Parts: sequence; structure tokens; C-alpha cells
Amino acid sequence: MGHRVWGAGRSGAGRSGRRPIVTLTTDFGWAYVGQMKGVILSICPDANLVDIAHDIPSQDIQTGQFTLYTAVPYFPNAIHVAVVDPGVGTSRRGLVIETKRGVLVGPDNGLLIPAARRMGMQRVFEIKNRKLWLSNVSNTFHGRDVFAPVAAHIANGTKLDSVGPEIQSFIDSSFPVPVVTDDAVHGSVVYVDRFGNLITNIPQELTRRRFDYGDEVEIEVDGEVSRVKFLPYYASARSGSLLCTISSSGLFEIAANSENASSLLGLSVRDGVVVRKASRKRDI
Amino acid sequence: MGHRVWGAGRSGAGRSGRRPIVTLTTDFGWAYVGQMKGVILSICPDANLVDIAHDIPSQDIQTGQFTLYTAVPYFPNAIHVAVVDPGVGTSRRGLVIETKRGVLVGPDNGLLIPAARRMGMQRVFEIKNRKLWLSNVSNTFHGRDVFAPVAAHIANGTKLDSVGPEIQSFIDSSFPVPVVTDDAVHGSVVYVDRFGNLITNIPQELTRRRFDYGDEVEIEVDGEVSRVKFLPYYASARSGSLLCTISSSGLFEIAANSENASSLLGLSVRDGVVVRKASRKRDI
Amino acid sequence: MGHRVWGAGRSGAGRSGRRPIVTLTTDFGWAYVGQMKGVILSICPDANLVDIAHDIPSQDIQTGQFTLYTAVPYFPNAIHVAVVDPGVGTSRRGLVIETKRGVLVGPDNGLLIPAARRMGMQRVFEIKNRKLWLSNVSNTFHGRDVFAPVAAHIANGTKLDSVGPEIQSFIDSSFPVPVVTDDAVHGSVVYVDRFGNLITNIPQELTRRRFDYGDEVEIEVDGEVSRVKFLPYYASARSGSLLCTISSSGLFEIAANSENASSLLGLSVRDGVVVRKASRKRDI
Repeated sequence: MGHRVWGAGRSGAGRSGRRPIVTLTTDFGWAYVGQMKGVILSICPDANLVDIAHDIPSQDIQTGQFTLYTAVPYFPNAIHVAVVDPGVGTSRRGLVIETKRGVLVGPDNGLLIPAARRMGMQRVFEIKNRKLWLSNVSNTFHGRDVFAPVAAHIANGTKLDSVGPEIQSFIDSSFPVPVVTDDAVHGSVVYVDRFGNLITNIPQELTRRRFDYGDEVEIEVDGEVSRVKFLPYYASARSGSLLCTISSSGLFEIAANSENASSLLGLSVRDGVVVRKASRKRDI
Repeated sequence: MGHRVWGAGRSGAGRSGRRPIVTLTTDFGWAYVGQMKGVILSICPDANLVDIAHDIPSQDIQTGQFTLYTAVPYFPNAIHVAVVDPGVGTSRRGLVIETKRGVLVGPDNGLLIPAARRMGMQRVFEIKNRKLWLSNVSNTFHGRDVFAPVAAHIANGTKLDSVGPEIQSFIDSSFPVPVVTDDAVHGSVVYVDRFGNLITNIPQELTRRRFDYGDEVEIEVDGEVSRVKFLPYYASARSGSLLCTISSSGLFEIAANSENASSLLGLSVRDGVVVRKASRKRDI
Repeated sequence: MGHRVWGAGRSGAGRSGRRPIVTLTTDFGWAYVGQMKGVILSICPDANLVDIAHDIPSQDIQTGQFTLYTAVPYFPNAIHVAVVDPGVGTSRRGLVIETKRGVLVGPDNGLLIPAARRMGMQRVFEIKNRKLWLSNVSNTFHGRDVFAPVAAHIANGTKLDSVGPEIQSFIDSSFPVPVVTDDAVHGSVVYVDRFGNLITNIPQELTRRRFDYGDEVEIEVDGEVSRVKFLPYYASARSGSLLCTISSSGLFEIAANSENASSLLGLSVRDGVVVRKASRKRDI
């Protein structure tokens, strides 16, 4: 079957007369991404290119997952190319994922999955049709040679099922799931932002049941416990001091007002953290 | 009254048939800005998004002021969203500022004011109308939940006075004003660029009256005096040596040819500097 | 004579009805580039601005050359503005270079030449016509005051020969040429990417004649020899260990699987490297 994501064929302008949006998320730094942009505009000159981020830490699939998961659901119908790809050149597959609110294109290493699920994952295709690739495919840069041209052809109206066969299994990596015990939630850091704020994998529902704004919370890292307040926003803590809050992504976050919580706690991506309501009796 | 900035209503294409320009300036790093871009394109798919900078040092309002002040006056009529926002979540207000050459959107903390004055500030509105915001507003990311959607609605033709009441007072922070004495100008550094050039708050008029190209100038920092030449461009100094010049923004600048003046002098944003013409008698 | 690169005159939309692509590559960091974007959009509101990179190391012309050389040939017909310009303000000239696949605009210091040659260099013009510049030209920022407005006028349909006289000589710097001896190729590093991969000036033809995938190769740096395997892609080496391969630009590359080869070898841009097939007899 394979309905067209963008209706108007080669002009790329779509049914609506609008330019198809193609977003780019990579761990490449900028220079290499320039080559991908050239490829996309050569195939689909009307593409509306949007840079999401190219400073994902090198080969850090989890930070890539989080960046996509938090950003792409805010877009209107768009084609999202994402490349964090330590396995480039190996037999790892390339994927095109159809969702209710856009298309994701990238390697089959879990990178696209959290975003795809959040956007309503529908069909997954393996990229196989070499006619949609550049004629010379390098072993080290599929972002330019495979993913960029495939995305541009989709922006031009190529049906998703032309890229290759629909598949049922793929690498289904997602954020780790926190473990809940009687008195605590055992989670981990899934993202450290530019301010040093530590976003965890703990959804706000799990914390809201345990404590309210104003309560003291114990943050345990490697057996060391810090007591911090659960507060609605950064500036409600004293300047320089730690707090915890709900991040803009709806996840439990450890931050510091006008300071870098990641440095203060020595905590970074994938580190474990145990969160519980502070007992009243304890001395501070 | 409230004339439309962009004439054509929801298409966003404006009277001229042109796509409304929406610029973005933040201290977020890239990943979070991707969420703002998605929000803007969801509301105004024709927006022509332009990244100005997302590497403003965290919560450094003055560097944000300088970046906007130097960049946005070069744009044609546009909507400029800027977010350096340590007070997010508190009662600090959000502003829409109408100028003769475009609209500024961001927090009421002084960030927008130097640019607004340079562009001919006209009316200032407090952002109050929740109908123009995302339905769920976080406490930590008004860039995405308030400023981005308000800017996108303005790009679509929403009148400025629909965002909230016109106000007369706001936080009117600007660059510090240099102090002039008989023999010297007491200024400070307002911006350090990527090359380590130190741009001060001293307008060229104040220096031109005191010395000409080729003259020796005393730069006093914390009581220590360096003698450097006032020269028309970087390469007119010996390689590696300090000079002073007029920056491309019309302000007095301390630089070094093929070197980093900020490192050489140990000087950064907000540090004081005293500038005077070197006396002839002095030994070098 | 001077045919128009973009056909449609001031609308900037070109014969095809498409928005002219203007790419930007600088060593400025982002904030200053915002000023250039404003200038371009003021003159040519339909310009489709594409950021290639603004994180070229300060005044590193060779990294700028490599970035342009690898990126701009992938673009459709476009105007490429590039500024790495240690000689700004001196008598160094500004150039507009016509190629078979687009126009390059920037300083006459070699920056544009490798890309221009790869795209089929045709005519070179010296930028002389002040009517196409901003009315006030600073001594320190020709990117904003000269190159951006000239590029925008070209995007609007201004003929190339209006920018100034056609010239026959210019600074013809290019990548250094490797030296081939009986048993080795003496090359140098021309680019270090974000992953620490070392791209050399040695074209794949020179290595393919000497060794095949799977062979051991000697990499000699300052007299110290490392033996590494020549492999088709990064993940074919053991995690953390060095390899050599053919980069996506067709040049010989020294890399490390999930590691930073530049740090491991203490090697960076412009450093020399000697490459030869490892002799069988040698002990490892």
C-alpha cells in the first residue's frame, strides 16, 4: 500500500504547498553535517532544513535518544534524520520508521525508538533500495550516503515502502526503567544538559506520589546521601544550592540554582541515583 | 489599535508573500532549542527560522544583550525570540517589544532592552494571554512553552496587543556607562568573542577624541598598566602582540594579532578597564 | 559578458522559482554570524541560509579549506560564503569565484581554492564595487560588511562581473601534496574531526596500490612507528584500538574504534605522517 507522506511528488512542496521539513540530529559536529545538507538540497531543493543538534557526545546513543525523544514530538509532520552510528559500515541495518506524526530515518541501534514510540510508531522499513542512495557509498559516512538521500527522496514524495521491506523486529533499546521499592525509586541519569542539570529516567508520576513541593528529598549516589528540597523551579532554591524538580520533559531532575549540579554531585549520564522522601527524624 | 506586524493571517506568509523570519538566541545549547523550533513550526509552518546563537554562556544576560544588540538591527523586519532566563518559573514577566524594525520576545530581565532601543523601541507588552501559550506550561522552560508559541502566533499575524496589556515599566538594564575623567575613560568589558577579543562599553567617539591610529594607549587593569598601540586592524600589530582598535560594533576593543587577548590579559566579561593616551615621557 | 547565476533579479527566487541557497562557513562562532545573516536577509529576503560550520578553529585556513572542499560540492547550485580571515583590514583582496556548480565568496588567502577546483573553477573576480557593500565598512569584519552583502546581491541576480574585475592571479594555496618514495608515502594531517579521526592528504589511490584491507600498515610519526590494520570501517577494529581506513572524503584516514586517534597518537592538523606497508619479518 504505502501512502505518501508528502503528497506532491518531486517538487517537494507537498499537498499543502508547503516545504517539507527535514530535521537533522547527529554527533558529527557541524562540518560533516554540511555534506548531508548539500545532498538533501540536491535531491529536494525545497527541503526546509532544521538543525536540532550536532553536539551529541560522540557515539552516545542514549543522549541522542533523549534529544530526539524530547524534540521531535513538538514538530508538525516532518522527516527526522538522526545519526549516532558507532556501527557504521557493519551489517547494522538502516531504518525508516513511520509514525503518526512524521518519519524517522537513521541506524538500527535504538536511537530512533523512544521518539518513535512517543509519536505513535506505525511501520518500520529496512533501508535496502540502493536506487535511493548516493551512487558511491562510503563505509564510514552513511549519514551522507544513505540516510540523507533516503530522507530527501521521502521529502520528495517517495513512498515509504519503496525504501525496502517492512520489518517486525529491530533493536528496541529504550531508556532504562526505574525500579520502585517500598521507600525509594532507583533510577539513573538519562541526560545532562548544558547547565549541568541532571534529568533522570524517573517519571513525575512516581515522585508526585511520594513527595510534594517543599518536601525534603534524599538523593543517594554511590551510597552518599544528599538532602535537597523538591521545588517548583530553579530560582526557588538558594543561589548555588542543589534542588530537585520536574524537568520540562516531565522527568525527575536534579539541579542547582545558578550552579552546575553535574559538577557538584560528580554525576553524569548513565549513573545510578536513588531517590526517597527524607525521614523527618534525621539530622541535617 | 494594534496594527499587524505580519499582514496575512494564519498562512504566516505576510503581506509581501514572504515567510516571516523568526530568529532564536539562547543560552540553551542546541538540543533544547530543537523543541522551540518544533513548537514554532507547528503553529507557523512558514516561519523562516534563523539561529543566531545558542552558546551564550549559561545565564549570562549581558552577553545575551550584546549578541542581540549587535545582530538583530541588521535584520529586515523580523521576530526575535531570545531566552537567557535565570528567573524562569518566578513571577518575572514575559515581554513582547515592538520596535521600528521588528519585534522582540523574551523575559523581562533586561535581555531585550539594548537591542530594542537601538531598533527604535515603541510599545512594550506583558505576555498574559494564555491562549497563545502551549496548553501545559512547565516551570523550567518558558522558551518552549510561552515565548516560542507567542512568537509563532505573531508571525501568523496575531496583533501585538493580543498578547497582553501594554506596560510602561520593565527592567531597564543596559550596558554599564563608561565614566570619563580628565585623562582617562573608565570602562568595562561587555563581550569576549571566540578569538578572545575584548569588546568594551566605550564608544569610539570617546576614544577618537583622545588618540589616533598609531598612538600608544595605556590599558590599566587592576592597577597594572599595559602600553599598546591603537591600530586600524588586527594584522597591523606584530603577530602575537596586543593592540587596541575599534570593533565592528563601534566600541573600543582590546585584541591581539593571532592571539587571545582575554588570556593574555586575564580579562573577561564585566571586568573593569581604564584607558588613557600614553604619556610621551614614560619609558616603555 | 557575465551571465546571471540566479535569473530572476531582485526577488531572489531565481528562474526556477526557487529560493537561492546561501551557505555560511566561518571561524567566528555563532554570534557574529548572526549579523551576516541579517545583512543577507535584508538584501535578499528569499535567501535560503544554510549553516555549514562556524567552529573552524580560529584563523585555521587549512581546516576551512577542508570543510569547504568536502561540503560544498554536494550542494546544488548555490552561493557559498566562507570567512577565515586573519588578514582582514589589510590589502588582502576579496574574491568571487565562479565554478561549474556554484559561486564562492570570501578572502583571497587560499581558503576557497580547493573547493573551487573540485567544483570546476571558471572565472575569478576581485571584489571592488563598493556599491555592493554596506555603506560603512569596518576594518575587522568584512564577513558582515563586504562578503555577506556581495553574496546577497549575487543571490538577487547581480552579475558576477559587476563585483569587480576578472583577475588571473590569486593566492593558490591548496592542501600539501604527499611525497611518494619507493616504500612509503610521506603525507600530513589535513583535518581532525570531532571524533579525533585524522584525515591525511594521501588520496586512496596511493594507498590502494600498496596495501589491501586486512594488511598491516606502519604509521610513522616523528620517528615512532605504530603498526595498525588497514580496515574497511571503524567497528572492524577491536574497541579502543587504532586502525587506518579510507575516509568518506576518499583520503587515507587514521582512526580508532570508539576512541580518539588524535589523542592516542598526539597528532593534529599539519603534522607529518609516513605510511608504508608493514614488512612481514618484523616482530610486533
